[in-house]
Amino acid sequence: MKKVLKFGGTSVGSIERIQHVANIIKKERDAGNQIIAIVSAMSGKTNELIDLSNQISKKFDKRELDVLLSSGEQVTCALLTGALIDQNLNAKSWLNWQIPILTSGEHTNSRIINMNISKINEHLSRGGIAIVPGFQGISEKGEITTIGRGGSDATAVAFAKAFNADSCEIYTDVDGVFSSDPNKIPVAKKIDQISYDEMLELSSLGAKVMQPSAVQTAMMYNIPLEVKSTFTDRKGTKIFDQENIDYRKSVTGVAYSKDDAKITLIGVEDKPGVAANIFEPMNKAQINIDMVIQNISSDQKTTDVTFTIKRNDFLKAKEILENNKNISYKSLTHNDKVAKVSIVGAGMVSTPGVTYRMFKALADEKINILAISTSEIKLSVIIDEENTLNAIKKLHTIFELD
Amino acid sequence: MKKVLKFGGTSVGSIERIQHVANIIKKERDAGNQIIAIVSAMSGKTNELIDLSNQISKKFDKRELDVLLSSGEQVTCALLTGALIDQNLNAKSWLNWQIPILTSGEHTNSRIINMNISKINEHLSRGGIAIVPGFQGISEKGEITTIGRGGSDATAVAFAKAFNADSCEIYTDVDGVFSSDPNKIPVAKKIDQISYDEMLELSSLGAKVMQPSAVQTAMMYNIPLEVKSTFTDRKGTKIFDQENIDYRKSVTGVAYSKDDAKITLIGVEDKPGVAANIFEPMNKAQINIDMVIQNISSDQKTTDVTFTIKRNDFLKAKEILENNKNISYKSLTHNDKVAKVSIVGAGMVSTPGVTYRMFKALADEKINILAISTSEIKLSVIIDEENTLNAIKKLHTIFELD
Repeated sequence: MKKVLKFGGTSVGSIERIQHVANIIKKERDAGNQIIAIVSAMSGKTNELIDLSNQISKKFDKRELDVLLSSGEQVTCALLTGALIDQNLNAKSWLNWQIPILTSGEHTNSRIINMNISKINEHLSRGGIAIVPGFQGISEKGEITTIGRGGSDATAVAFAKAFNADSCEIYTDVDGVFSSDPNKIPVAKKIDQISYDEMLELSSLGAKVMQPSAVQTAMMYNIPLEVKSTFTDRKGTKIFDQENIDYRKSVTGVAYSKDDAKITLIGVEDKPGVAANIFEPMNKAQINIDMVIQNISSDQKTTDVTFTIKRNDFLKAKEILENNKNISYKSLTHNDKVAKVSIVGAGMVSTPGVTYRMFKALADEKINILAISTSEIKLSVIIDEENTLNAIKKLHTIFELD
Repeated sequence: MKKVLKFGGTSVGSIERIQHVANIIKKERDAGNQIIAIVSAMSGKTNELIDLSNQISKKFDKRELDVLLSSGEQVTCALLTGALIDQNLNAKSWLNWQIPILTSGEHTNSRIINMNISKINEHLSRGGIAIVPGFQGISEKGEITTIGRGGSDATAVAFAKAFNADSCEIYTDVDGVFSSDPNKIPVAKKIDQISYDEMLELSSLGAKVMQPSAVQTAMMYNIPLEVKSTFTDRKGTKIFDQENIDYRKSVTGVAYSKDDAKITLIGVEDKPGVAANIFEPMNKAQINIDMVIQNISSDQKTTDVTFTIKRNDFLKAKEILENNKNISYKSLTHNDKVAKVSIVGAGMVSTPGVTYRMFKALADEKINILAISTSEIKLSVIIDEENTLNAIKKLHTIFELD
């Protein structure tokens, strides 16, 4: 089998762990697989380098930041490759420019557009193992670029595509994708298999296991993913096409995001272009809008618009709404201590009553729902932040995820 | 003026110091100079990386060691460039493969053979500043290589040559080249100017200010060097062609090396090929021979051969001599606690009596001379190690270096 294995920062966070990762790779190699391994910087390293750059300037030049940060994965690449060679394996590291991994876009936020793995393929066909740094590439001008935090997942998926890999395995410090945050909900269960769509919803909604854009790419090219632990032998979570999944449960997981704030504009004039007027200045101020809810207007002349944003954007957003003359409304209400709790499941569409059961469960717990938003495989509610844990626990129980 | 400035590890050992180096470069730039700056890894960084590799394997793969170590200078490059940009200067970092700096030879011990600075020249002609990592390059196959410890000096001199620089300034943590080790001999004086030859002898003899091979290259291409402190405004030591130096003193400096051992073979058969027989097995065992002294034989049949080696090679050397049947001699004497003390000066040849004055001075101090070796600009003696400091002080005084 052709495999791409990706090892995150904690998986390579010490020499001992790097040796352990070398053992995992050796085992996969000995089983007859062709291996390309993608590595992150040792845990803490990227933050350490960012801290150094901040000490020099809060507006540290982005081209040079990429030169700085890319050194982190280079170190891991060399150490892991050295550890494999020490086990008499024919391993070799490839740096971004040696492949090359071509990217486009801005410094610190590029995306991979192409790569040439012909030399790597040649090396693998001779029984070799290839070690590659995640998170980075070079631009068409030959400048070092990085592809944003968590970008090593994207590197892994891009390699899996170019390599036509049979699987792309994301090794991390948890056993897989959980039905909810296992640190908060001790009864949260590892999910054995999940569709790309569900995974996307879960990761967009706060599950930090995989970078959403990497899941998206995997979905686009139908690359089977597996999230698993570097530190245990347990089976991980397989992520693949929805059609191949047997849904016994309507709800796969419960996700949440904290540090949200909610703003409601009451009595907004109900005519075309109003929503654009509200959100254009937000966009200019780089305020990310999460949920937007607008009801049919009762008097057919005005309507109420509710939206949620990150809490640290709250004051800026409020100021914009209060001072921008293009936005007219009767009054503004807000709550800057809310959380979003979501149930996710590709089986939801085919199971009647999921929506009702969610609302009933929250009512039983006397949790007030401040706003509701749905998609085909997701149902999100905004509630007071203090109720978050209670809500997750209750939903987890009634949807039989414990 | 076209200048190459090289900053060693202690000069860039912290963010504060990197900011200070940025100020030095800004000042030079503001004075109208074109600047290429070569930087080392932050002090301690290279050792830290070597330590990591040793934890993985004592025989860590050399190709991967080069990938590992080269990350150190990359970090300094980015930080220093960022600091300059923060001062509104048009600075840009170039990595080894972006230039490229071509090397030949083995991993961890390559040498620079060529570089293409056309893009750097273009950048400089537009008022830019170029920051380049020392110590590294790429092979013709496109592999990362390093050029040995202290190799940043060699990088600086190679750039000075390619750039046709007016001067190559080595910024370090001492004020310049001293007449002797200022930590041992408080009266040691900074030398204002010194010839390449003298500098070579001094650095080969233990003065650790500059890497000998870099001095050699500078001499070959007649590139004026200056060694100066990053931390004071004092004038440094200028190193240039002997012909341009006005020698008021016969002796420029006193150098020493400790941790030496001396072996004498008595009654060696005096015929061609004998010396080769003695030193061939030493070479095979990678034992570095320093001084070799052989007298005319008194009985015209046998002679005595004395040589010095590093103390930690002593037991190995003794074993070779005692067990190798190709080497015949009457007896072997040794002293494994000796030091070499040398006076160096291009003015020695033209000053009569220097040799006598040295021997007389040591005799006055009741220091026994175990062996003597001379060159045109150097006179070395082997003495008991315990007398080293006394000898240096005395020589320093009688040759008016205090």
